[in-house]
Amino acid sequence: MSRIEKVDAVFKTCDRIWINANLATFDSHVEQPYGALSNQAIGVRDGRIVAIAPMERFASDVVSADVIDACGNWMTPGLVDAHSHLVFAGSRAREFEQRLEGASYEEIARNGGGIISTVRATRAASVEELVELSEPRLQALMKEGVTSVEIKSGYGLSLEDELKMLRAARILGERNPVRVSTSLLAAHALPPEFADDADGYIDLICNEIIPTAAEERLADAVDVFCETIAFSPAQCERVFRAAQAHGLGIRAHVEQLSNLHGAALAARYGAWSVDHLEWLDEAGIEAMAETGTVATLLPGAFYFLRDTKVPPIELLRKHRVPMAVATDLNPGSSPLASIRLALNMACTLFRLTPEEALAGATRNGAKALGLADSVGQLRLGMQADMVLWDIEQPAELAYQFGVNPIRQRILSGEVCNV
Amino acid sequence: MSRIEKVDAVFKTCDRIWINANLATFDSHVEQPYGALSNQAIGVRDGRIVAIAPMERFASDVVSADVIDACGNWMTPGLVDAHSHLVFAGSRAREFEQRLEGASYEEIARNGGGIISTVRATRAASVEELVELSEPRLQALMKEGVTSVEIKSGYGLSLEDELKMLRAARILGERNPVRVSTSLLAAHALPPEFADDADGYIDLICNEIIPTAAEERLADAVDVFCETIAFSPAQCERVFRAAQAHGLGIRAHVEQLSNLHGAALAARYGAWSVDHLEWLDEAGIEAMAETGTVATLLPGAFYFLRDTKVPPIELLRKHRVPMAVATDLNPGSSPLASIRLALNMACTLFRLTPEEALAGATRNGAKALGLADSVGQLRLGMQADMVLWDIEQPAELAYQFGVNPIRQRILSGEVCNV
Ligand SMILES: [Zn+2]
Ligand SMILES: [Zn+2]
Repeated sequence: MSRIEKVDAVFKTCDRIWINANLATFDSHVEQPYGALSNQAIGVRDGRIVAIAPMERFASDVVSADVIDACGNWMTPGLVDAHSHLVFAGSRAREFEQRLEGASYEEIARNGGGIISTVRATRAASVEELVELSEPRLQALMKEGVTSVEIKSGYGLSLEDELKMLRAARILGERNPVRVSTSLLAAHALPPEFADDADGYIDLICNEIIPTAAEERLADAVDVFCETIAFSPAQCERVFRAAQAHGLGIRAHVEQLSNLHGAALAARYGAWSVDHLEWLDEAGIEAMAETGTVATLLPGAFYFLRDTKVPPIELLRKHRVPMAVATDLNPGSSPLASIRLALNMACTLFRLTPEEALAGATRNGAKALGLADSVGQLRLGMQADMVLWDIEQPAELAYQFGVNPIRQRILSGEVCNV
Repeated sequence: MSRIEKVDAVFKTCDRIWINANLATFDSHVEQPYGALSNQAIGVRDGRIVAIAPMERFASDVVSADVIDACGNWMTPGLVDAHSHLVFAGSRAREFEQRLEGASYEEIARNGGGIISTVRATRAASVEELVELSEPRLQALMKEGVTSVEIKSGYGLSLEDELKMLRAARILGERNPVRVSTSLLAAHALPPEFADDADGYIDLICNEIIPTAAEERLADAVDVFCETIAFSPAQCERVFRAAQAHGLGIRAHVEQLSNLHGAALAARYGAWSVDHLEWLDEAGIEAMAETGTVATLLPGAFYFLRDTKVPPIELLRKHRVPMAVATDLNPGSSPLASIRLALNMACTLFRLTPEEALAGATRNGAKALGLADSVGQLRLGMQADMVLWDIEQPAELAYQFGVNPIRQRILSGEVCNV
């Protein structure tokens, strides 16, 4: 049987086929910018991509599948937001306002502001309330084409409240057509109960919170905030060991405000991703390159905090470290529920090319979630998570903003309403 | 008749009444932040606001109007985007990409990029094509609560093509429930036909384009780009005189890249607004204060061009110059069809308070369009252009981003679908 006949045969087995589509595959084996393949047919079966071929090799009369005409539009992998804190209660709008009215961080803290105000509101909320408050943020991302999203805990800071946040994240994933990957970020800030005893809190995390979250399958990964104002490298290392012992993925907030060499440390523990990275140095990058750890860039927080130190993009390119781009959606430092805006900021503020930015919210975002083998590319065998866009060229997705050119958001081969 | 009875009497004459609303009136006579009045009834008749009173003074059994329960939500004036170039053809996404791939401005110009590429595409488009291409951008603004928008010409640069752009803007306003204010910006760039004869082009503008646009009622105002790379103050002054002679409003792009003292010049001609203003000095501000000229801030262009020189906000405050905030939506330097993002950027990048930013897209935006007496405030006698928001406090509109909390967009008292 010739190659062409084989392709025909596969299309005959498909449930659904999109025809006349330009594909931005983000498959690195396709040696075109964006892994582009023009004028293709792409077929799915049982939720996976099983056929991709140029239109001239596709004969519509031989298939019984549901056929959708893409009319020359572009299809990309479903977008991946690999870093979000979208489950929380309370608003920090008043704090934002006070700061612009000239209040100091001290005054704001005295008035009950800062992260602890989010912790207070999140602790007071029930799991159902958390789901309800967070769903509009999740759906805002979905409307822009997100099909996989990471959601962290980190505003509970107690066994019960951290698990509650993770449960809310799981429920959001069950009620909405989107993949949710959860990270336990108990080591986000020191809870008031442990004000003078950070090591005691790390004990609680390692001995109780991580084991319970793992046992109840509430966490896919464990995350830490490695920073002078948060937890030390030694404390983070204890968390990484506990995560490893329980078979959970590892990720870390590192090198955002200073260089504690957290990236190299996390890479040594095989971290999927290290995030922020404004102060990352070449030694850290070399460690990441060795272990295949993703550099997740968060330009929304950089923008919102009016940071001026840009992550070392040139060095990351030089060492071929995969770069992800994510929203960091959170109430304190990145209240931006928009992956498209994160893409634009990655280009405008960090000088990524549109291709790099989009790879960061597809192939590399998937890798940052330990999902490189199942989502983030249009490739045979991958989950058929895809977005059809009414655009002339993929760069538009990172360039213009405000107009949403989405035509279809597709999860596991099914066209979604949101 | 007591004051209370009078209020009752007016409600009896209303077509429609919103009850249980918190009003951010932006009426400067209301001495509260945002001109806030809590728990109000607001009634409209024949498209105008005719009654505002606290709920305890409103008796629902005496009215025959359509009554809408705002359920404690906030109502603001309809948002005003006082500076946009949203009518154009063509895309500059490839140019954006080339620049990020390291191409110089020269190379991009050689490849046919820059403003002249937008001029070429706009000249090639019919008025109907321009309407179709621009409508999604207009509707993106409307979806965020915009009820009045300024639209400029400036990519035609010939009599016929400038009028075509203004016609497209007028048609957009007729087909969509939104107020469109048009500005003739023929003095935007030098067309290739006049490459060595800027004064000759100014002759054409003053002797033909302005008179025809005025006669056909296509332009509400005339605009200029006063800059070393565009037109000189002397050339702009000729345009202002012609605008005055034809009874058109005056506005100007000034002090964006250098200080040519264009703001003071435009103010002397009674300009409604001068825009950009990064290089504005105190003398210019004093001139604006004298004539009541609005300072229209465009943080989107500042962001996109990675500008570092912030407009002199403190001095504008000191001299009580009204500040508007607008999108500057355009394909070259601000491809951001979002007034909410402009509000956030005005706060984050220019350090406006949320109240100042919102006043900039309501009361002061209206003043920048010469519409201070009819829109931009919730006040008796004003057009009932209003937005009902599912928010806890007005600051949220400038703080969070991505989630659209709009409940109703209301134009002349009618609830709109978009
Ligand atoms: Zn984070
Ligand atoms: Zn402009």
